[in-house]
Amino acid sequence: MPAHALFRDEDLRFDVDVDPLVQSLRQVLPAEGLIVHEQGRRAYECDGLAPYKQLPRLVVIPETIEQVQVVLKLCHESGVPVVTRGAGTSLSGGSLPHPQGVLLAMGKFNRISEIDAQRRIARVDPGVRNLAITEAAAPYGLYYAPDPSSQIACSIGGNVGENAGGVHCLKYGLTVHNVLAVKVVTIEGEITTIGSDCLDSPGLDLLALMHGSEGMLGVIVEVTVKLLPNPLTKQVLMASFADVGSGGHAVAGLIGRGIIPGGLEMMDGAAIQAAEDFVQAGYDTDAAAILICELDGSEAEVADQMKAVDECLREHGATRIQVAADHQEKARFWAGRKAAFPAVGRISPDYYCMDGTIPRNQLAYVLQRISEISAAEALETVNVFHAGDGNLHPLILFDGNQPGQLEAAERAGSAILQLCVEVGGTVTGEHGVGMEKINEMCVQFASAEIEQFHGIKAAFDEKGLLNPGKAIPTLNRCAEFGHLHVHNGKLPHPELERF
Amino acid sequence: MPAHALFRDEDLRFDVDVDPLVQSLRQVLPAEGLIVHEQGRRAYECDGLAPYKQLPRLVVIPETIEQVQVVLKLCHESGVPVVTRGAGTSLSGGSLPHPQGVLLAMGKFNRISEIDAQRRIARVDPGVRNLAITEAAAPYGLYYAPDPSSQIACSIGGNVGENAGGVHCLKYGLTVHNVLAVKVVTIEGEITTIGSDCLDSPGLDLLALMHGSEGMLGVIVEVTVKLLPNPLTKQVLMASFADVGSGGHAVAGLIGRGIIPGGLEMMDGAAIQAAEDFVQAGYDTDAAAILICELDGSEAEVADQMKAVDECLREHGATRIQVAADHQEKARFWAGRKAAFPAVGRISPDYYCMDGTIPRNQLAYVLQRISEISAAEALETVNVFHAGDGNLHPLILFDGNQPGQLEAAERAGSAILQLCVEVGGTVTGEHGVGMEKINEMCVQFASAEIEQFHGIKAAFDEKGLLNPGKAIPTLNRCAEFGHLHVHNGKLPHPELERF
Repeated sequence: MPAHALFRDEDLRFDVDVDPLVQSLRQVLPAEGLIVHEQGRRAYECDGLAPYKQLPRLVVIPETIEQVQVVLKLCHESGVPVVTRGAGTSLSGGSLPHPQGVLLAMGKFNRISEIDAQRRIARVDPGVRNLAITEAAAPYGLYYAPDPSSQIACSIGGNVGENAGGVHCLKYGLTVHNVLAVKVVTIEGEITTIGSDCLDSPGLDLLALMHGSEGMLGVIVEVTVKLLPNPLTKQVLMASFADVGSGGHAVAGLIGRGIIPGGLEMMDGAAIQAAEDFVQAGYDTDAAAILICELDGSEAEVADQMKAVDECLREHGATRIQVAADHQEKARFWAGRKAAFPAVGRISPDYYCMDGTIPRNQLAYVLQRISEISAAEALETVNVFHAGDGNLHPLILFDGNQPGQLEAAERAGSAILQLCVEVGGTVTGEHGVGMEKINEMCVQFASAEIEQFHGIKAAFDEKGLLNPGKAIPTLNRCAEFGHLHVHNGKLPHPELERF
Repeated sequence: MPAHALFRDEDLRFDVDVDPLVQSLRQVLPAEGLIVHEQGRRAYECDGLAPYKQLPRLVVIPETIEQVQVVLKLCHESGVPVVTRGAGTSLSGGSLPHPQGVLLAMGKFNRISEIDAQRRIARVDPGVRNLAITEAAAPYGLYYAPDPSSQIACSIGGNVGENAGGVHCLKYGLTVHNVLAVKVVTIEGEITTIGSDCLDSPGLDLLALMHGSEGMLGVIVEVTVKLLPNPLTKQVLMASFADVGSGGHAVAGLIGRGIIPGGLEMMDGAAIQAAEDFVQAGYDTDAAAILICELDGSEAEVADQMKAVDECLREHGATRIQVAADHQEKARFWAGRKAAFPAVGRISPDYYCMDGTIPRNQLAYVLQRISEISAAEALETVNVFHAGDGNLHPLILFDGNQPGQLEAAERAGSAILQLCVEVGGTVTGEHGVGMEKINEMCVQFASAEIEQFHGIKAAFDEKGLLNPGKAIPTLNRCAEFGHLHVHNGKLPHPELERF
């Protein structure tokens, strides 16, 4: 595991004998539902943040809600930690196993139990893939809006846990805005239903609290999502800019006018070139930046917005605007964006994908500073991101086989996230904190807020058994991380003085 | 105070000598910032739910955040409860004073500190009136979307505390969807900043948790809201139906087609007549129900939607559709809806306004049952409500001077809320639980969920000093309420057996 973020001594306080637990689990699980031997556990040692690897103590694969209840109750009684895993696509190590704990794999929860076209809701198991919901809703002319890039593989339970976004979340909201209710099993093994099929629920907003809670508050066993009608029509245009700053200002200009496109993505010169070489999307390789803008709605609405977008982009210095002529061209414009990450994989042995969010008016400044930060580590970055909502995904290129390069990439990544906080942004937009950004949480939050997080965590999970060491740093960790940075004289953020 | 819901013995455990607290408060507050004499306190004895009256022990009116911090710190040290009050317009007794506590009146926090037109945000004090934000944003062509009926008077801090809605929340969301950040002082007197100016914040979603927390988690001292651009155009139409059920099906039909109007309101025959007699809005007094539908957007978009709405309403049996011919007529159509509550005040000495939310497809059934429930108490109801989001506001008519009528109205109200839960709905849409619906929370939630609420509450306020006895019932209360109902043989909901 890289040096960047690790389990700390205080996260490793669960050194109990698991033999009695194994005996009890055998009695409630089918034979294939419990993996004890190392070879079998090896398959679960990492998630989408592959450089972070950790063998779990046990792997449990339940098939029913009752089994989840019993497993959690037994772990609670034994004092054994539990890390829940959906499809294992987390980019922040959210489902990285705990060395002393159970890895609870929810892959068998994969049924869609209800599609109600009139009420426009779907009730699904947590292991159902994001895209599978849209596929099941398609015969009714409906779809599920949040569409993370991993939507073909990632599961809805993990989407809730990380409050996943996607290209269309600018207009249609994050996961939290598209989920009506969840069923959750607590660490004591009790089932609670949170949210309802209605507008709003009384009492404290536990539904929002579950979103982005990264498996720390309970285990999700059912999700009820909103479905939206397919837009009547879509149009896609692509605008070229001579510099990244103008593209950034154009984004702020569009939103400032009240135009909320279905998608508004930006790629810098390096990303354009990599994508064009890979999939020949018809991108303008002379541009320093392109914006891809999708408008959706009725024919009249889209035509109307197209005029306003065209005008606004030209005002902000667009050097060329291409409107997709037909369905094939729309798909081609998007293909480049969607293939950008693998395209970058072709030009660099490894890359590290960041996920900071900034106020839109800081785009030009932050992109400039990102290139300086990477240059200081002798690394290059490629930028492909959700411009409309200020959610950056700088890809830091490195070669993991060259000694020191992974660490250099991690240093650059940490500096970029601290820069996001410095300009009024946050350390994650949609990938979650997990293990990856746990140190940077100390930059984002003061100790009063971190203590509040711990207070809420304790209200759900007094023994701290659910995903320990992730998402919310201990104050000890912050003290050490803060100290380290002050020591090196690199601290950009005066708030850290408080730790 | 009515018998329906009261402070219980367990809520009245704060019988401490407040003299030392008064001495300490005098040192930190201006003379007019502390009200001890009964006559002065009398002005604060109730909020918008006027039949519920309770004299507070002290009234404190701070002027600065530092004063709020000191007041809370002192109350925390002394073990004295604190009830926060904004404009005092709560319809559920959310700011009903505690007899042993401080009433913290936030009226002096009334500055708008920032309007940033480019980023479309406003940063305001909690005591700023809802409508004042829109007025301040108007010169920039912007507005603040949530618009509770009380928007001329209610304050934004209270809007956050109750997660207020309004006519336009169907399309533009509740308060929680329109607030980016809040500054909160904890009961220990610490300031925390929750949320950010960005898309999403990492860590647990404390921002959503604050919304609808009814003053139980902290005191809000600053709110950052999103502003929206004024729609380019609006159109209003009114559709008549021969029965309430057809109107309900038409609502479900519109939403099912993916048409989300800016506002979609329904009035029954009694409400139509009362409003027409009062303001001559041009309503169809032959109709058993009318729908008022507002569409907003660009000219093209609105024209396009108008066609679809017209078609859908006719399919669902609209007997007459009137489209507002000009600006005056649009205002007139809305005037009747907006004057509906005072119009009902003209035909009945008193009325009790309910606030249940139900799945839209249950509208016809629930309206029928409401009339049966009121008939059983020999009372009448008038229905005016946010049909689009299934948020009902039955007005139960009664005469408080007739012995037993208030109690009959409360019984009918409680039965209506339990009916809402029975059909899959909730006991409040936008007015909050407060003191009014605290018993019905026992019908809405099982003990596991109520215990989770208490756990979170304790994480913020271990001594339970913030707004005790409101919003979240104790399990003792539920046991007693449940028992009472079983005893009378009126229990409609099998879940209650569990208490």
